[in-house]
Amino acid sequence: MSDRNIRIESVDRRAVEDQEVEIVERKGIGHPDSLCDGIAESVSRALSNLYLDRVGEVLHYNTDETQLAAGNAAPAFGGGEVVEPIYILLVGRATRKYETDDGTEHTLPVDSVALSAARDYLNEVVPELEFGIDVVVDVRLGEGSGDLQTVFGEEGAAVPMANDTSFGVGHAPLTETERIVLDAEEYLNGPYAERNPELGPDIKIMGKREGDDIDLTVAAAMIDRHIPDMAAYRDAVAKVREAVTDLAEDRTDRSVAVEVNTADDYDEGAIYLTTTGTSAEQGDDGSVGRGNRANGLITPNRPMSMEATSGKNPVNHIGKIYNLLSTRIAEAVVEEVPGIRDFRVRLLSQIGRPIDQPHVADGFVVTEDGVAVADIEADVEAIVDRELADVTDVTRSVIDGDLRTF
Amino acid sequence: MSDRNIRIESVDRRAVEDQEVEIVERKGIGHPDSLCDGIAESVSRALSNLYLDRVGEVLHYNTDETQLAAGNAAPAFGGGEVVEPIYILLVGRATRKYETDDGTEHTLPVDSVALSAARDYLNEVVPELEFGIDVVVDVRLGEGSGDLQTVFGEEGAAVPMANDTSFGVGHAPLTETERIVLDAEEYLNGPYAERNPELGPDIKIMGKREGDDIDLTVAAAMIDRHIPDMAAYRDAVAKVREAVTDLAEDRTDRSVAVEVNTADDYDEGAIYLTTTGTSAEQGDDGSVGRGNRANGLITPNRPMSMEATSGKNPVNHIGKIYNLLSTRIAEAVVEEVPGIRDFRVRLLSQIGRPIDQPHVADGFVVTEDGVAVADIEADVEAIVDRELADVTDVTRSVIDGDLRTF
Amino acid sequence: MSDRNIRIESVDRRAVEDQEVEIVERKGIGHPDSLCDGIAESVSRALSNLYLDRVGEVLHYNTDETQLAAGNAAPAFGGGEVVEPIYILLVGRATRKYETDDGTEHTLPVDSVALSAARDYLNEVVPELEFGIDVVVDVRLGEGSGDLQTVFGEEGAAVPMANDTSFGVGHAPLTETERIVLDAEEYLNGPYAERNPELGPDIKIMGKREGDDIDLTVAAAMIDRHIPDMAAYRDAVAKVREAVTDLAEDRTDRSVAVEVNTADDYDEGAIYLTTTGTSAEQGDDGSVGRGNRANGLITPNRPMSMEATSGKNPVNHIGKIYNLLSTRIAEAVVEEVPGIRDFRVRLLSQIGRPIDQPHVADGFVVTEDGVAVADIEADVEAIVDRELADVTDVTRSVIDGDLRTF
Amino acid sequence: MSDRNIRIESVDRRAVEDQEVEIVERKGIGHPDSLCDGIAESVSRALSNLYLDRVGEVLHYNTDETQLAAGNAAPAFGGGEVVEPIYILLVGRATRKYETDDGTEHTLPVDSVALSAARDYLNEVVPELEFGIDVVVDVRLGEGSGDLQTVFGEEGAAVPMANDTSFGVGHAPLTETERIVLDAEEYLNGPYAERNPELGPDIKIMGKREGDDIDLTVAAAMIDRHIPDMAAYRDAVAKVREAVTDLAEDRTDRSVAVEVNTADDYDEGAIYLTTTGTSAEQGDDGSVGRGNRANGLITPNRPMSMEATSGKNPVNHIGKIYNLLSTRIAEAVVEEVPGIRDFRVRLLSQIGRPIDQPHVADGFVVTEDGVAVADIEADVEAIVDRELADVTDVTRSVIDGDLRTF
Repeated sequence: MSDRNIRIESVDRRAVEDQEVEIVERKGIGHPDSLCDGIAESVSRALSNLYLDRVGEVLHYNTDETQLAAGNAAPAFGGGEVVEPIYILLVGRATRKYETDDGTEHTLPVDSVALSAARDYLNEVVPELEFGIDVVVDVRLGEGSGDLQTVFGEEGAAVPMANDTSFGVGHAPLTETERIVLDAEEYLNGPYAERNPELGPDIKIMGKREGDDIDLTVAAAMIDRHIPDMAAYRDAVAKVREAVTDLAEDRTDRSVAVEVNTADDYDEGAIYLTTTGTSAEQGDDGSVGRGNRANGLITPNRPMSMEATSGKNPVNHIGKIYNLLSTRIAEAVVEEVPGIRDFRVRLLSQIGRPIDQPHVADGFVVTEDGVAVADIEADVEAIVDRELADVTDVTRSVIDGDLRTF
Repeated sequence: MSDRNIRIESVDRRAVEDQEVEIVERKGIGHPDSLCDGIAESVSRALSNLYLDRVGEVLHYNTDETQLAAGNAAPAFGGGEVVEPIYILLVGRATRKYETDDGTEHTLPVDSVALSAARDYLNEVVPELEFGIDVVVDVRLGEGSGDLQTVFGEEGAAVPMANDTSFGVGHAPLTETERIVLDAEEYLNGPYAERNPELGPDIKIMGKREGDDIDLTVAAAMIDRHIPDMAAYRDAVAKVREAVTDLAEDRTDRSVAVEVNTADDYDEGAIYLTTTGTSAEQGDDGSVGRGNRANGLITPNRPMSMEATSGKNPVNHIGKIYNLLSTRIAEAVVEEVPGIRDFRVRLLSQIGRPIDQPHVADGFVVTEDGVAVADIEADVEAIVDRELADVTDVTRSVIDGDLRTF
Repeated sequence: MSDRNIRIESVDRRAVEDQEVEIVERKGIGHPDSLCDGIAESVSRALSNLYLDRVGEVLHYNTDETQLAAGNAAPAFGGGEVVEPIYILLVGRATRKYETDDGTEHTLPVDSVALSAARDYLNEVVPELEFGIDVVVDVRLGEGSGDLQTVFGEEGAAVPMANDTSFGVGHAPLTETERIVLDAEEYLNGPYAERNPELGPDIKIMGKREGDDIDLTVAAAMIDRHIPDMAAYRDAVAKVREAVTDLAEDRTDRSVAVEVNTADDYDEGAIYLTTTGTSAEQGDDGSVGRGNRANGLITPNRPMSMEATSGKNPVNHIGKIYNLLSTRIAEAVVEEVPGIRDFRVRLLSQIGRPIDQPHVADGFVVTEDGVAVADIEADVEAIVDRELADVTDVTRSVIDGDLRTF
Repeated sequence: MSDRNIRIESVDRRAVEDQEVEIVERKGIGHPDSLCDGIAESVSRALSNLYLDRVGEVLHYNTDETQLAAGNAAPAFGGGEVVEPIYILLVGRATRKYETDDGTEHTLPVDSVALSAARDYLNEVVPELEFGIDVVVDVRLGEGSGDLQTVFGEEGAAVPMANDTSFGVGHAPLTETERIVLDAEEYLNGPYAERNPELGPDIKIMGKREGDDIDLTVAAAMIDRHIPDMAAYRDAVAKVREAVTDLAEDRTDRSVAVEVNTADDYDEGAIYLTTTGTSAEQGDDGSVGRGNRANGLITPNRPMSMEATSGKNPVNHIGKIYNLLSTRIAEAVVEEVPGIRDFRVRLLSQIGRPIDQPHVADGFVVTEDGVAVADIEADVEAIVDRELADVTDVTRSVIDGDLRTF
C-alpha cells in the first residue's frame, strides 16, 4: 500500500459486461431532474467565477439544491402554449460580503449572478421556454456559514483538508449498454435535434441487457409547433427509433430492440406532445441529485454514491471532488493500462487529512483473460497516485465547466 | 333632478385655487407604488384583451393587488449593480377555463399573459431593470368566483347593474399647482429624460402653495452609469431644478421655488444615486392603490376615493368605473361650459340598478364672478346626463389603454 | 401665528353634519384589507418592543406592507372547510444586527417576532382560521437602510427632525353617521359577536346620509358551523339588522334604514356564508392602507391622507405621527373647547426641523351659531400647541397599542 | 423460472459481511434530508387517507418533492433562538375535485391536509421547532394529471398494471455494521433521547468497517436549552459515545471505535450546539430522496435504486412499490430459509403487465458454507412468489404507515 493508502485488488465478481442482466438509465438534459442538476451546477460555476473575479479566491457557498415545481401546458398540433409557469426555486447559501485590504466592505451580487446563470442555462437547454413567463425562477440563498478555510485562488491552490467523512466511487470502462445509452441521449440532444427540431430535450433512455439482448426504451418529448398532426408525430417517433437503433447497432454486435414512447395511445390521442420539449411544463417536478450520477448514468449494477454532485462547491466539498476524481482515475487507468476488463475505484476521506491522502483508495480490477492483477498492479497504482496528487485540477476543471457532473 | 338623479348645486366654499393653502403630490411612474399601479393595470388590460380574443367577451377577473418587496443595490458613480432582486407578486383572481359551443373545455394562459404584461410594462418604464434578474415576478391568481354577469364583448356592451354600493369623485379644472405638479412629472419622465438619460423614472413631486407662493419639492432618482462623479450629480440635480422652474413659471404668475433631492448630504456622500432609476432597488416597497388617484394626483384639499382604480375589472367594477367616469364628466363640464371656476362631481351607485342610473350624481359648482349657477345648471346637467349615458365607453377606453388610472 | 406656525381660521363651508349628502364607510377588523392593516401594525409594535427590550431603543424598521392573497373555501351549513390556504406575505425592512458596548455583534430574531405577532393577531381576530393550515404566513423583511437617527429609548425621547415633507389631517367630532358606522362595527365585532358566534369578523358598513335619512348597508360574513340551515341564516341576518337598527336609533333622531347582506339571493342559495368568518377565505385579497384611515373610517366628505398609517415606524415616520397626532389634537379641541361644530387640523412637516415645529399647523373651525372664531381662537391654539409639544407621546401610545391606526 | 419470471442464482461475490471494506450511513430522522423524506411520506399517507375517506378510493397524486431551505439561528448555552425561519415548500400534484354519483362536483382540501400532515410530522419529530414561526411551510400542489387508472379502495384492490419500466432492489440480512448503524440511530432518537433531552433528532451516523475494525462517526446536534455550559456539552458528547459504544459492542465481537462530533473545536467554541436539534435551523438545506434508501440506510457496497421512495403514490408508483416489496421479500427469505448468508432480490417491471408479474425477479444468494443454492432454491422461489402475489399489501402497509421508506 502506498503513502496514499492505495490498494489494488482483484474483485471477486464478473465484469458488469459479463453479468447476466444489466440495467442502465440516463435522464436527458431536458428531464426535470437534470434541469435542476444543470442549473445548480451552472449557478455553482457562476459563483466560483464571481468570487475569483472580485475577491481573487472562491468564498464559501453551496448551491446543490434547486426545486422545480411543474407548470401546466396545453400542447396542440402546430403549437400550443404554457398556461401556468414552471416555478424554480434556487436554494443554498453563498457569502455576500467581503472586505478589501483597506477595510471597505463590499457586497457581492450573488442573487443576480445565480439568476443569470439559471436563465442562461435554461435558454440554452430548453430554448422554447420563455424565461420569466413560462418559467419563474426565484432564489433563496442564505448566508454562507463563515469562512471557507480552503484557499483556491489566483495564486494557485493548496490541497484542502477533508472536513467530512465522505465517499466517492468511479468505474471504467462503460459497458456496451452504458455506452449506447449515454451516446444515444447525447446524439439525440445534439446533432439529431439540430436537424430535427421537433425533438425536445426531455429524453429518458432506459437500457436493459439480458445476456446478449439489449432493449432500449426511449421516452422523447416532441415539440408541438413542429408537429402539424398525428401522422407527423408518428413519423417523428419512428425516426427517433431508427436513429437510436442505428447508433446502437454501430456499437454492439448484440441484438438491439428499441421502443420509443411506449406509453402512447394513438386511439386515445394520448401522446408525448409538449409545447416546450420538457415534461416540466406539465406534471413532472424535479430536484437536484435525483437523477444521473457523476458519470452521466444511473447504474444499479454498480456501487453508486448518493451524493448530489451538481451545485456543490468544488473547492472544498469532498464528496463532489471524490466522485469526480474517482471517475477520472478509473478512466485514466483503463485508457493507459491494457488488459483491464472492469475497474472500480473507491475513495474514502479522512477528516483532518489532506484530501490527496485519502483514508482508503481501493482499486478493484477485473482483468482480461490471461492478465494477472500482479502484472498491472504497479501501473495502476502509479496512475491512482498521480491523479490523487493532481486533485486540485478537479476543482479547476469543474469551475471551467470541463467536467460532467450529471 | 333628472332621471339619472343628477343634482347640480352651488358649493359653499372657495375654489381650491382660491384657498389659502394647497397641497398636491404626484408619485412618478417609476415610484414603487406607481410601478404596482402600472403593472396591475397592464395585467388587467392584457387579461381583458385575452378574453376578448379567445372568448369574445370579458370574463371574471380582478388584478388590483400587486406587492413589490424592494431589492438591494450597490449604486456607484459610473455604474453599480443590483445585488438582491426586487420581488414582485401579482395577486388577484382570473377565470382560467371556458367552454366552446361544442362543449370542449379550454384553458386560458392567464398566468403567462399576466407575467408578459408585467414584463413588458417594466421594460418600458424601468428599462435599466433586467427582468428576471434584477426583478423576480411571481404570480398567484386564484380562480375567479364564478360568472361575470355583465357581458362586454364583440357584439357591444350592455350597461351593467351595480353589484356594490360604491362611490366615485371627479374634479376639474386642475389648479395651477396641480397642473404644474402633473406636467412637471410628465415632462421629466418624457422629453426631459429622453435627452437626459441620467434621470430615472422614480420622481416624486410635492407641491405646496401658500397664498401666491408655490414650493415644489422634487425627489429624483439618478442613474449611476450616466453619472461619473459628484460634480456630474450636482449638475444633474441643478438641471432638473432649472427645468422644473422653467416649466412652472410658464404656467403661473405666482412665485415658484423648486428644491430637488433635499435630503442629499454631499459631505456624507448621501445622495439619491441608483443603479436602475427606482428606489425599489433598495428599501422602498410598494403596492397598488397607495399613491395617485385616478386623475394622477394626491389632493388632500379635495374629496378623494380610497378605491384602488388600477387593476380592477373595467367591465363591472363600479368603483373603478365611477372614479374614471366622474373625472371624465368633470373635465367635459369645465371644457364645454364657460364660467366655472371649480367643479366636482360625485357618483354613488345603487345596488341592482343599471350603473348609468346612479343613486346620486351630485355636481358641486363654484362659478366665476358674475356667473350664477342657475345660468349654467341646464348645460352642466346635460353633459352629466350624456356622459352617464355613455358609461360603457369608459370600459372600452380602459381596455384600449386610453384612460389614466394613476 | 405661534412659534409652531399654528393658524386657526374659520372654514368657508358647512360642517359635514350639515351637508346635504354624506358618505361614510368602515371595513371591519376581519375584512382582508383591515387584516393586513392589523397585522402590519401588530408586527410594528412587536418589533418596537423587541428593539426596546434588547437594545434599549427602537432601531430602523418599516413594516407597512402586507399582502394577502385569498384562499379557497367550501363553506356548508353546519360546517365547511378551507380547501386552499390564504397566503399572507409580510413585507418591509428591519434592522437585524446591533453591537453591544463590548463590540459583540448580536442578531435579532426579527422574522420570528414578526411571524409571532402575525399569528397572535390572526388568532385573536379570526380564531376560526387555523394558523399555518388555513393561512400560510411568509415573511420578506429586507435590511433596514442604516441608522435611525432618532433615538427613542429607555431614557426618554428626543423630538425627531422631520426627514420628509409629509402631511397629516384630523377631524372632530364625528358626525352622527360616522359615529353610528364606527360604533356599529365595534359593537357587532365586540359584545354582539360574543353572544352570537355565528357572526364573523368580516363586517363592512357603508353609511349614507341624505338630509335626515340615514341608510346603513351592512355586509356580514356568517360562520357556517354555527348556521345549520337557511332558516338559521335568515335569522342571523335579521338579528344583525335589528341590532344595528337599535344602535343607530339610540344615536340619532334621523330616520334610519338598515340593509344586511343585500347581495344575497336565497333562491340561488347565494348567501354570505363562510367557514372562517372572513371573505379572505375565498376570493377577496387585501393589503395595507387600502381601507380605513387613522380615525377608523373612510370619509370622502373630508380631506384624507393617502398615507398608510399601519405598520410604519412610530418613532420617525412623520406621516404616521402627524396623522395620529392631528386626530388626537382635533379630539382634544372639541372636547375641551365648547362651541365648535366641526374642527379640522392639518399638519405639514418641514424637512430638517423638529417635528413639534411643523411648517404649517392649520386649524379650520366651524363654530356653532353665536360663537365667533375670535372667541375661541386662543383656547384652540393653546391646545394645538400643547399637543404638538407632547408629540413623542404619540410614539409611546402607538408602541403600547393605545392608538387606533385603522 | 416460474410464471413470475423468478430466477434464483448464486452470486459470484463474497457476502458484504465478508468483504474487506464496508461503508454504511444513516441520516437520522432530524437530518434536513430525512425531514423532507418524512414530511413527503406523511403528506402522501394523509392524502391517501383523505381520498379513501371521501371518495372511497385513492385518486391520482404524487408528493415526492419537498424542498427545505435552511433558516438562521443563534444558539446559546442555556437557550438561544431561531432568528430566520426555515422555509419548507411542499411540491407535487394532487387531484382536487371529484364527482359524486349525483353529478355534484366536490372540492377536496388537499392543501390543508398536506399542511396539517407536515405540521403534525414536524411537531412530532422536532418538537423544539415552533410551527409557523421557526419554520414556514408553504405548498404548491399542481393538478394531478388525470385519472389514476388503478383502483385501490374500500372494496379491495386489483393488482395494477405497470405504467413505467422501473426497478427495485432489496437485501437481507443487514450486516453487523449496518445493523449497528441503524439501531444506534433509532436508539439515540428513541429511548436515549427520552431520558436525555439535550440530544436533538439530527443525528448522522457513518459506519466504516475494515476487516474486523468498525469505526462509527456520529454527528449529533445538541439542544442548547438543556446545555448550560461547555462542561455540560462535553458530558453530553461523552454520554452519546458511551451509549453507542455499548450498543455496538452488544451486537458485534469486532472491535468498535466511536467518535462523536469530531468537527468540534472546543478552543474556538465551535461545537454542534443548536436551538432546535436540527442543522436545518442554520445552513443545511434538504430535499427528498437524497438520503436513506427504503431500508433506512445508504449502502454503497450494495446495489441501490436512485428512486425517491418517500412521498410517491403507493397505489400505482411501481418504483416505490418494487423497492419496498423487494426489501420485504429479502427479509422474508432470510428469516424463513436457513443457510443464507446474503440475499439480494431485484425486481424489474414490464410496462403493460400486472405488477405481480415482473419482467425480471432475480434472487442472488450467497449461501453459508455447506449449503448449496440447489438445496434452497425451491423454498426461496416459493417465498418470492408468495410475496409477489401479495403485492397490494405493500400499498395497504404504506398507507397505514407500517413500512419504512427512509
